[in-house]
Amino acid sequence: MSRDALVFYSPVDDPVAWREALTAELPDLDFRVDPEVGDPADIRYALVWVPPKGFFARFPNLQLVTNLGAGVDALVRRDDLVPVKFSRLNDPGMVAMMTSYVVFAVTRYARDIPVFERAKRRGEWDYVHPRALSDIKVAVLGLGELGGPAARTLAAMGFTVTGWSRSKKDIEGVSSETGRDGLERVLAGNEIIVSLLPLTPESRGILGARELALMPKGAKFVNASRGAVVDEAALIAALRSGHVGEATLDVFETEPLPPGHPFWTLDNVLITPHLASITVPKLAARDVAESIRRVRQGLAPLHEVDPGRGY
Amino acid sequence: MSRDALVFYSPVDDPVAWREALTAELPDLDFRVDPEVGDPADIRYALVWVPPKGFFARFPNLQLVTNLGAGVDALVRRDDLVPVKFSRLNDPGMVAMMTSYVVFAVTRYARDIPVFERAKRRGEWDYVHPRALSDIKVAVLGLGELGGPAARTLAAMGFTVTGWSRSKKDIEGVSSETGRDGLERVLAGNEIIVSLLPLTPESRGILGARELALMPKGAKFVNASRGAVVDEAALIAALRSGHVGEATLDVFETEPLPPGHPFWTLDNVLITPHLASITVPKLAARDVAESIRRVRQGLAPLHEVDPGRGY
Repeated sequence: MSRDALVFYSPVDDPVAWREALTAELPDLDFRVDPEVGDPADIRYALVWVPPKGFFARFPNLQLVTNLGAGVDALVRRDDLVPVKFSRLNDPGMVAMMTSYVVFAVTRYARDIPVFERAKRRGEWDYVHPRALSDIKVAVLGLGELGGPAARTLAAMGFTVTGWSRSKKDIEGVSSETGRDGLERVLAGNEIIVSLLPLTPESRGILGARELALMPKGAKFVNASRGAVVDEAALIAALRSGHVGEATLDVFETEPLPPGHPFWTLDNVLITPHLASITVPKLAARDVAESIRRVRQGLAPLHEVDPGRGY
Repeated sequence: MSRDALVFYSPVDDPVAWREALTAELPDLDFRVDPEVGDPADIRYALVWVPPKGFFARFPNLQLVTNLGAGVDALVRRDDLVPVKFSRLNDPGMVAMMTSYVVFAVTRYARDIPVFERAKRRGEWDYVHPRALSDIKVAVLGLGELGGPAARTLAAMGFTVTGWSRSKKDIEGVSSETGRDGLERVLAGNEIIVSLLPLTPESRGILGARELALMPKGAKFVNASRGAVVDEAALIAALRSGHVGEATLDVFETEPLPPGHPFWTLDNVLITPHLASITVPKLAARDVAESIRRVRQGLAPLHEVDPGRGY
């Protein structure tokens, strides 16, 4: 048996598609799907999504853990990590998919579609004069490898876009804000607010009742990152009062969203089942393979994650 | 009084915004709003949307008629035109607006949003594994000044895009088809089909029962050009049978769409009240002014229309 094997674990990703995509890039890679791992000492690489507690400690020669997703909060908040290198996925298919979701949700609001959905149910032609896209101010919170391209695409479409992120970013057509003051300006100054924030200790609950109240009355909120960045009870209250006029939510504190949850019954909420962005193995495998090649040469993997920093 | 005046007529466009935008470009222009036209002999230019019959013959010195819209079918099929130059609007705001509408409608289908809208009404988390955008084939019928940019943007987002037009077009990322054979291939080979066809004698009713039947079962249809390019009775039958799975319709044979029309009651139809693309005076005025300058110098206007050809 090879002494240079990879273990795959995921409750949602397709091991067959991943084996095919990754061995096309690395024909010598011994791709093993948990629980059929053979000799645990062979395992040098792990490609995983939310593996069970104690998973990593089984592999004494593990060198690299790659998270099967862009959001690594579920990985870095574990207390059973081992001192190896960590990386996360970044694939152009995932970026395109997230951008398409954000563009859909923002454009739906910019073009007054919820008004027409309601008019349709009444059987009424309800003309609302459209506004120029350049008059519509959109904020993107989080300008990472998903938020950055989404913000750039919105700007290229003609929206007036401001981004908020930990450090200043230079993205074509996108104003950049940072810091607590910047966040407050961004929330107050934009009518459509999109969260693509990674979940970190700093971002957990960052959008609470106070922050939602800063948004202009009738603001639209889109969350395609993690449910826990927003205080759901405060968001429900704001949606009920109409202060937040509409929301598109892909992520929730508890997933699947439980039957009978208030979000289900709010007419001004569109719910999607956590799929704004998913991995496309054949597009993501290239970078996973390159990370393995780099670790074999003693180099850092691509898209390295620092579990201490949280992203 | 000036002998170089413009007459404005529109039941829907704002004369104040147009006066402001156009006189910013041409301070010497005498901008008159029908019916306050003064001496009809002063009128050299008309900026109009569906003026009443006989309108043009009132102005003996008319040189240029500019249509307040990109679709000129309502103008060119009149029998009261006078032998002057005709042009239509083209403004970047209108292009951006149409692109946003098409991107919204296509992405809504690509991301399975109607499935989640229905799941929401049932209060159910209904996960549907998303497909890579590159696996989703989209056709744009009509690659003119609105269709071309819409097709290019869809391709840049990652969709697989084919365009159909009278003549072969070279648009980045977009396959180009022409002719009757090409139309049949395009209808059969794409799951989302967008009409941005101008209404001409050739395009009237071009999508009849036979053409709808060529589409793959469950195809999605988006019409943001003119209602009369599709046989509405055939479309209703196809939507009822599910052969056409979903439709987004901005335009109709009769507008406003009458109360009780079958489209209102079909659950798989999204209706918007003919606003996919509208003119933004401050962005459109530049080209209107330039056309007037060119006509003053004896040149052809920008975006000239040939009433005989129909576009």
